[in-house]
Amino acid sequence: MPAGAVPRPPQTGRMVSTSALELAARTRRFISEQVLPVEREIVVDGRPMDDALRLELQKAAKEAGVFGPLSPVEHGGLGLDTRDQAVVLEAAGTSLIGPLALNCWAPDDGNIHLLAHAANAEQARRYLAPLAAGEVRSAIAMTEPAPGAGADPGMLRTTAEEAPGGWVINGAKHLTTGADGAAFVICVARTDDGPTMFLVDADNPGMRVLRRMPTLDHTSAPGGHCEVAFSGCFVPDSAVLGEVGLGMEYAQVRLAPSRLSFCMSWLGLATRAQELAARHISRREAFGARIAEHGLAQGHLADNEIDIEASRALIARCAEVIDAEGPASSAARHHASVTKTFVSEAVWRVLDRAVQLHGGLGVCEDHLVARFLVEARAFRIYEGPSEVLRWSIARRVLRPYR
Amino acid sequence: MPAGAVPRPPQTGRMVSTSALELAARTRRFISEQVLPVEREIVVDGRPMDDALRLELQKAAKEAGVFGPLSPVEHGGLGLDTRDQAVVLEAAGTSLIGPLALNCWAPDDGNIHLLAHAANAEQARRYLAPLAAGEVRSAIAMTEPAPGAGADPGMLRTTAEEAPGGWVINGAKHLTTGADGAAFVICVARTDDGPTMFLVDADNPGMRVLRRMPTLDHTSAPGGHCEVAFSGCFVPDSAVLGEVGLGMEYAQVRLAPSRLSFCMSWLGLATRAQELAARHISRREAFGARIAEHGLAQGHLADNEIDIEASRALIARCAEVIDAEGPASSAARHHASVTKTFVSEAVWRVLDRAVQLHGGLGVCEDHLVARFLVEARAFRIYEGPSEVLRWSIARRVLRPYR
Amino acid sequence: MPAGAVPRPPQTGRMVSTSALELAARTRRFISEQVLPVEREIVVDGRPMDDALRLELQKAAKEAGVFGPLSPVEHGGLGLDTRDQAVVLEAAGTSLIGPLALNCWAPDDGNIHLLAHAANAEQARRYLAPLAAGEVRSAIAMTEPAPGAGADPGMLRTTAEEAPGGWVINGAKHLTTGADGAAFVICVARTDDGPTMFLVDADNPGMRVLRRMPTLDHTSAPGGHCEVAFSGCFVPDSAVLGEVGLGMEYAQVRLAPSRLSFCMSWLGLATRAQELAARHISRREAFGARIAEHGLAQGHLADNEIDIEASRALIARCAEVIDAEGPASSAARHHASVTKTFVSEAVWRVLDRAVQLHGGLGVCEDHLVARFLVEARAFRIYEGPSEVLRWSIARRVLRPYR
Amino acid sequence: MPAGAVPRPPQTGRMVSTSALELAARTRRFISEQVLPVEREIVVDGRPMDDALRLELQKAAKEAGVFGPLSPVEHGGLGLDTRDQAVVLEAAGTSLIGPLALNCWAPDDGNIHLLAHAANAEQARRYLAPLAAGEVRSAIAMTEPAPGAGADPGMLRTTAEEAPGGWVINGAKHLTTGADGAAFVICVARTDDGPTMFLVDADNPGMRVLRRMPTLDHTSAPGGHCEVAFSGCFVPDSAVLGEVGLGMEYAQVRLAPSRLSFCMSWLGLATRAQELAARHISRREAFGARIAEHGLAQGHLADNEIDIEASRALIARCAEVIDAEGPASSAARHHASVTKTFVSEAVWRVLDRAVQLHGGLGVCEDHLVARFLVEARAFRIYEGPSEVLRWSIARRVLRPYR
Repeated sequence: MPAGAVPRPPQTGRMVSTSALELAARTRRFISEQVLPVEREIVVDGRPMDDALRLELQKAAKEAGVFGPLSPVEHGGLGLDTRDQAVVLEAAGTSLIGPLALNCWAPDDGNIHLLAHAANAEQARRYLAPLAAGEVRSAIAMTEPAPGAGADPGMLRTTAEEAPGGWVINGAKHLTTGADGAAFVICVARTDDGPTMFLVDADNPGMRVLRRMPTLDHTSAPGGHCEVAFSGCFVPDSAVLGEVGLGMEYAQVRLAPSRLSFCMSWLGLATRAQELAARHISRREAFGARIAEHGLAQGHLADNEIDIEASRALIARCAEVIDAEGPASSAARHHASVTKTFVSEAVWRVLDRAVQLHGGLGVCEDHLVARFLVEARAFRIYEGPSEVLRWSIARRVLRPYR
Repeated sequence: MPAGAVPRPPQTGRMVSTSALELAARTRRFISEQVLPVEREIVVDGRPMDDALRLELQKAAKEAGVFGPLSPVEHGGLGLDTRDQAVVLEAAGTSLIGPLALNCWAPDDGNIHLLAHAANAEQARRYLAPLAAGEVRSAIAMTEPAPGAGADPGMLRTTAEEAPGGWVINGAKHLTTGADGAAFVICVARTDDGPTMFLVDADNPGMRVLRRMPTLDHTSAPGGHCEVAFSGCFVPDSAVLGEVGLGMEYAQVRLAPSRLSFCMSWLGLATRAQELAARHISRREAFGARIAEHGLAQGHLADNEIDIEASRALIARCAEVIDAEGPASSAARHHASVTKTFVSEAVWRVLDRAVQLHGGLGVCEDHLVARFLVEARAFRIYEGPSEVLRWSIARRVLRPYR
Repeated sequence: MPAGAVPRPPQTGRMVSTSALELAARTRRFISEQVLPVEREIVVDGRPMDDALRLELQKAAKEAGVFGPLSPVEHGGLGLDTRDQAVVLEAAGTSLIGPLALNCWAPDDGNIHLLAHAANAEQARRYLAPLAAGEVRSAIAMTEPAPGAGADPGMLRTTAEEAPGGWVINGAKHLTTGADGAAFVICVARTDDGPTMFLVDADNPGMRVLRRMPTLDHTSAPGGHCEVAFSGCFVPDSAVLGEVGLGMEYAQVRLAPSRLSFCMSWLGLATRAQELAARHISRREAFGARIAEHGLAQGHLADNEIDIEASRALIARCAEVIDAEGPASSAARHHASVTKTFVSEAVWRVLDRAVQLHGGLGVCEDHLVARFLVEARAFRIYEGPSEVLRWSIARRVLRPYR
Repeated sequence: MPAGAVPRPPQTGRMVSTSALELAARTRRFISEQVLPVEREIVVDGRPMDDALRLELQKAAKEAGVFGPLSPVEHGGLGLDTRDQAVVLEAAGTSLIGPLALNCWAPDDGNIHLLAHAANAEQARRYLAPLAAGEVRSAIAMTEPAPGAGADPGMLRTTAEEAPGGWVINGAKHLTTGADGAAFVICVARTDDGPTMFLVDADNPGMRVLRRMPTLDHTSAPGGHCEVAFSGCFVPDSAVLGEVGLGMEYAQVRLAPSRLSFCMSWLGLATRAQELAARHISRREAFGARIAEHGLAQGHLADNEIDIEASRALIARCAEVIDAEGPASSAARHHASVTKTFVSEAVWRVLDRAVQLHGGLGVCEDHLVARFLVEARAFRIYEGPSEVLRWSIARRVLRPYR
């Protein structure tokens, strides 16, 4: 292989720990017994996915000992390494709201990771601790309406200018996940020294959540995807997260783990849809035989199984790379790009086939797979659209030949 | 080619008439000017798609001279043959609610076709005339919950038994499109002489619309997809549509044109999504260039264009076959199966790529393509799921080799 | 639709003429009875595909009245318009060597078309007449080794400089189809006034066929794909085809019809492979049933049928556009790009599935489909690789939004 | 997860050993320096791939210390477990003839595995020892012409009847890989007690290799894929491999490892093709930029990278399952089915895209990728066609719902 090629770390580590497998089994049981009934109320009966419900679910998760798989031990989390997270989050993801119940859902999971990396002691006490405990929710305000930063973070237009004792932030953000009801928002803004992250409290009069955008994935997120305006928003110096000018570096620290967490959870939902589909076609007949005996239905199940196993295998390998090389390493970023692209598309295919296997009932939300499909659509876009990821993968493949 | 092979009629006819192209242009103008603003109100502002709105739109269509492209001239329709319908319905379909405005949307379009074929004079006066005029809506109750008739009509369980002066219908139906608010329902029920169609008035006390099922495609249908119960439902002999025992033959008459009409309309929506996507990426930048200059975005546009053209070409060919051989001919059914399978999947791909090309905004319903995608999901299932159609296509391909 | 959009000509013409359908039937009979036995000798027994065999086949075609479907009547051809060519060439293409037998195979078919457009009377007498009669073969030398013209004709490096009484050509060409044994080569070279086409006789001492390149498609081409060197190659002024500087315009005249002819012929081969596969799986059993009864095998057959019908429909539409708007029109070029991209990929899929349906025998050349697949691989590359075509399609789609 | 579901073993093991990574690096160096030049002679210059060449390559491999990665240590092999084999065979597979050079290519690799499992001491001495040493080649005669055993081993028709002192075998086999020139053939035949494996020496007068079948993959196999006739073929009792009636059990022991070895080697070839393609497009220009800068070319590279990484990850996981659960375990068989289906199709896509990225030169065998593609076609069929594997995968998925 030519020098400078795609990073391929040793892969000499272990796969999953025994204790993580046990925890995953416990998590799956918790989801089945305590979360699935609530999920049905939300999807079918229209029960609102609000903070009251979130707190109720998280309380149950704490009692079941499955709360906080992504959080550090010192903040009440389970302190798993990435490889062990994989099996636990897959179990959590078997419900649309499972990761939320365990406090390992976006954007809080990534923000916990980010704060653990970059927050000072006071910030950790004030922001990380209640977030890891599930007492509050958070948001990260990165994406902007055109011509600001979308898939290309280099186009950042929100600014922060120094003012006596602090900074004044101005700019428009949108698709800010979870902003409605968040206790604080991590705002990325351009300063003279480069992009910088700021911790902005919800009651800051300079920040306004304008509206929840009418996105397809409205079930799984209690705080929506919002338009947020920063208008003469003053924050003190103590609101700077980490160092001024290092906002993009911190974003990188957050990125690979965040992409991979999504993969783990959505894979769980794919396995659930596969089970629903297998059960459905095993019970229903058409053209003189159970649907499960028709070859094209079997083909869908097999393709699902292949997509699920390939996703699981890629996640395991990427997790090992992150654990071995660090979340912001070149290898971690490359593997996370490859994995996120494949898994987001594989999950979509699995859910789509599960709908098809349900026949006419597949598009009725009370059979759940319809809702799963719709909720999953954004996964191929957020945290890097497939097209942008493919472009970055190709550039890395090409590097040694320049 | 071996004897008995797939029917390939001569294809010696004309393509489209000049007058139909003119009508299509007029239709597209009508949609742009009068329907698109209403569509936006429905999708974005949540204006209900009810009968009041339907009547308002249809009134406008009448004034614009574009009402009734699928209806017979003697009932106020435009009397187009299938080839000419293709270009007009594609134009109508550029809005989700365009076909409804023109009174050429399911299930009324197929029911008009069916009644024109099978109704006697009195039935035509009482049911076909007001339906073709848009004064009322209708439904057709075919699909049943398990273990009844789904994709396999042979599993029909709803029964009709002779009673003095008429028939008594018992059974459960679901996914009955448009039943909520329909003036009458065409119910397919099993009699001693075979499946038979009955015209059941909405106020028949033996028929109850139990609920609208929570399907993904809630925007485009004013009457929903419903569960309907027939319980000791008495209808007089005059309610028999056509002849007793010929229900499946009539369903065949209805089927190929109905499948093809869906293809035409949904193709229109695909062309609209392609325009929205092309416009979007021409205006927005990322990574130092307009998105329209990035190769993978161009690839999506080109794949869309190929899918659109192939769909259009297949529809044109199938329409010619229907016009030449009749809607219930073996050739028409084969070509409609091929065309419906391809077009339903191609439309899905086009809409999905259009979402992807919109980036994060692609999953926001106020950019419309998100709603288009969700509404279109059922198209790969209703009027024959792709898997069942592939099976029937293969059997026809294999016939000469048995 | 915005102004400047993708050209969509009226499509108001007829489809196919009755006489063409009759000719197609005759052609298919001729192929079955007289060409298929020879094809088997070539593929299975290794009989060389040389000019002796070509002349033998063409003699038979003349006697059967099916010779020259692409040639003008005044040169002994059948003078079909493009729509009628479609059905005849599809019939001819049911054998790998069928189009050669009918004298409608590359590069001679395109060269006949080109010469009919651009040759003067003397050139027509000397080059077009014997070519249309099948007395000689020809080649067109366009593609060059890097850094010359490949998919991008703008990179042309072969030069022609004026000399007393004529021109001196220097440069290297490769992938020159049919050059080995061709009576003349049409060489595209750069002059001060732009790219120009020159007729170079095979015995010109300045032109040398260096070697046949070891390409995958060695069965269907008697003259191979060659490396050709032009070294101080003098040609008289009378060797200029058409006007100096118009070489690219003439190439455009040739391009859309040439792309479409390939589509027609290869579609024929796809239909043949489908028949071979359907017959094979109808005769062979596995796992307790004929393979034809297994769902995934049926799925392949159905997908083949859909690909075949969509290809046929796109070809028909594109042919109508060429007939209505002319072969070098913007509409013809766009539709030929769309059609060539789809059909070349669809044919590949069909042949690949036919191989798969043959199981282990599918990769044995004596079952023919293996050879078909290998021969077809280049079709997705020559006359415009799919990637370049997609790029050009997208640019046309985007034009109105600039 | 319901009881009886798809087997998902713990995945608590290690990934790859450090020593295996070192051996893989050495192997890749050996291939680059000593095998690639010979590969080029074979593909481009037509040097025959015969036993003389095989012995020459294997001698070099022994000297480089990379010979026998699949063979037991006691027979001169490297004695790797399956996880470690993965990285070594991927390195070996970077040349079409690399696995042959290392003596880990079909059918010998599987036969070594089979003999190590089932041979008695005398058989091991006489057959396994020289085979593991590379002194001889072998074959396994399983597949039969219709109506015998193809993908369905249950259709076995070759018989072995008891005779004084031994057995008499009668039947026809085909696609018997490596039979031409093999020192012995393992013949699977039906006895009264069930399918049984027999060791048949090449000089047995009752066995005749009728011909090499004209398969597409003629480069990589020195002994071809042959038709073999057994006619009154007497073998002594000592020729029974293992126990009478256990032939299918032994075939199972051989199957999962054999499928996985193919995956490892072919993955290596895919990585090679990717490097060739990346290099090619980095050097060549079109339309004003290096091809490597065109988005659709980058898309192909990225898709290749994703397919390669997913294949590698699936192989690693399947190898761990085989090591943990045994090669004939239900878990191993399921994972091998999933992995073989995905990898065989992924490798095909990678090679196909590599051809496409080479443009016109992609179909010239002297650029190698053309030959790679053709050689790889059978991989989607042998050792279980994708369709049969999908069917078996689906049945396992469905098991708990019966």
